[in-house]
Amino acid sequence: MEDNLLLLSNSQTHNMGFLEHAREALVEFLDGRRSIYFAPYAAKVSAYDSYTATIQEAFKPFNVTVTGLHTVDRPAAALRDAEVLFVGGGNSFRLLKTLQQLDVINVVRERVTHGELRYMGSSAGTNMSCPSLRTTNDMPIVQPASFASFGLISFQINPHYQDPPTDSTHMGETREQRILEFLDENDVPVVGLREGSWLRKRGASLALEGLTAARIFRRNTAPQEYKPGSDLSWLLTLPATFDQSQP
Amino acid sequence: MEDNLLLLSNSQTHNMGFLEHAREALVEFLDGRRSIYFAPYAAKVSAYDSYTATIQEAFKPFNVTVTGLHTVDRPAAALRDAEVLFVGGGNSFRLLKTLQQLDVINVVRERVTHGELRYMGSSAGTNMSCPSLRTTNDMPIVQPASFASFGLISFQINPHYQDPPTDSTHMGETREQRILEFLDENDVPVVGLREGSWLRKRGASLALEGLTAARIFRRNTAPQEYKPGSDLSWLLTLPATFDQSQP
Repeated sequence: MEDNLLLLSNSQTHNMGFLEHAREALVEFLDGRRSIYFAPYAAKVSAYDSYTATIQEAFKPFNVTVTGLHTVDRPAAALRDAEVLFVGGGNSFRLLKTLQQLDVINVVRERVTHGELRYMGSSAGTNMSCPSLRTTNDMPIVQPASFASFGLISFQINPHYQDPPTDSTHMGETREQRILEFLDENDVPVVGLREGSWLRKRGASLALEGLTAARIFRRNTAPQEYKPGSDLSWLLTLPATFDQSQP
Repeated sequence: MEDNLLLLSNSQTHNMGFLEHAREALVEFLDGRRSIYFAPYAAKVSAYDSYTATIQEAFKPFNVTVTGLHTVDRPAAALRDAEVLFVGGGNSFRLLKTLQQLDVINVVRERVTHGELRYMGSSAGTNMSCPSLRTTNDMPIVQPASFASFGLISFQINPHYQDPPTDSTHMGETREQRILEFLDENDVPVVGLREGSWLRKRGASLALEGLTAARIFRRNTAPQEYKPGSDLSWLLTLPATFDQSQP
């Protein structure tokens, strides 16, 4: 069976309700499935319950039951039977460290790749679908055992991609500069996914959908803009090499 | 002998030349020393030479000779005899990974702590003076062996600290939110050091100097603003515990 991924830049877009901007895409992605496990680990421990309650509320109109993965005794075992996993946003380092400690990385990778488990992410959860968390925007507030994440796709995504402010006097790096730094050290394509958009993967097909264009960065190539509706399947066939410094 | 640190938020402030905003502080910090080693490792390898040339140019008016640490055969040995080390800005992850590979962390920590080597940093170089890189703004483009850095002070600094934009529709975290996430997981004070300012440590004394106020964050305490000229020596006496989640 082919794999199915829904990778949102963000869960909530300015002036809209939680997941409201992606309502139709959600229905299409779920394809009749009525049960979701939600991983709230990008939030702080004390917020797991309230974060899960927000997701439960957001999925009520879809007649979908949401179970917080933190409420089951053995998350890895639960994921062996799950139909859909939704990994929510927050801090990517905290998220990855917890996923590693729970030992769920391999079971998710295997079942998603074999088309048995559908994977949906937003923000940090989308970042986790990449080979590595290396293109996160988050602060490294804790140290994961390694930066390797689910690796459900072969390229990197930068969620919440932002264009440089035109009138800034700030001397810190722009988002584009940060991604170019990543390309200095890694020969791996990066999709700058602006808020309001998402990637939808179905087997060998990859599409950009949503409200905003995406900016795609490759080494030795000028960044390119792609409109919603673009077929990005070619991204899945590109080579990707980490830790290969630009000469 | 007491230790001497000069920790700049940034090397260049809007509309001013390289290190121009901190000219007097530099003279005071160097205190007659005429020879500096410069660590350019936060930049990409191909830029080491040009970055070092910029620093050499900036120090000419001070009659100071700057040697790129990357130009000497054995950097750790060179640092055993050095008077002043300047660690420049760029990407903190790349910087820390390289410092670890060069095996210079311990010799710098030991000689700075004993007052034998003066330490000057800007941006990522200032971040390295902390116990950990955990409060960097940089993208984790490469994976260092650990997040532990020089540990010349007991608290954390966030360089290039930025106030939240007032008119933004962006849903990503503000800098303050990121630092509060750090405090969820670590009971360690954080100095939000705005561009144009620096910390000057002389033994048990710590002062905020420069052009802008700093914002200091502590767990379970409202963030506090401090003006340039503030005595922050009390920060050096606070306990700091990493990896202690907020209950």
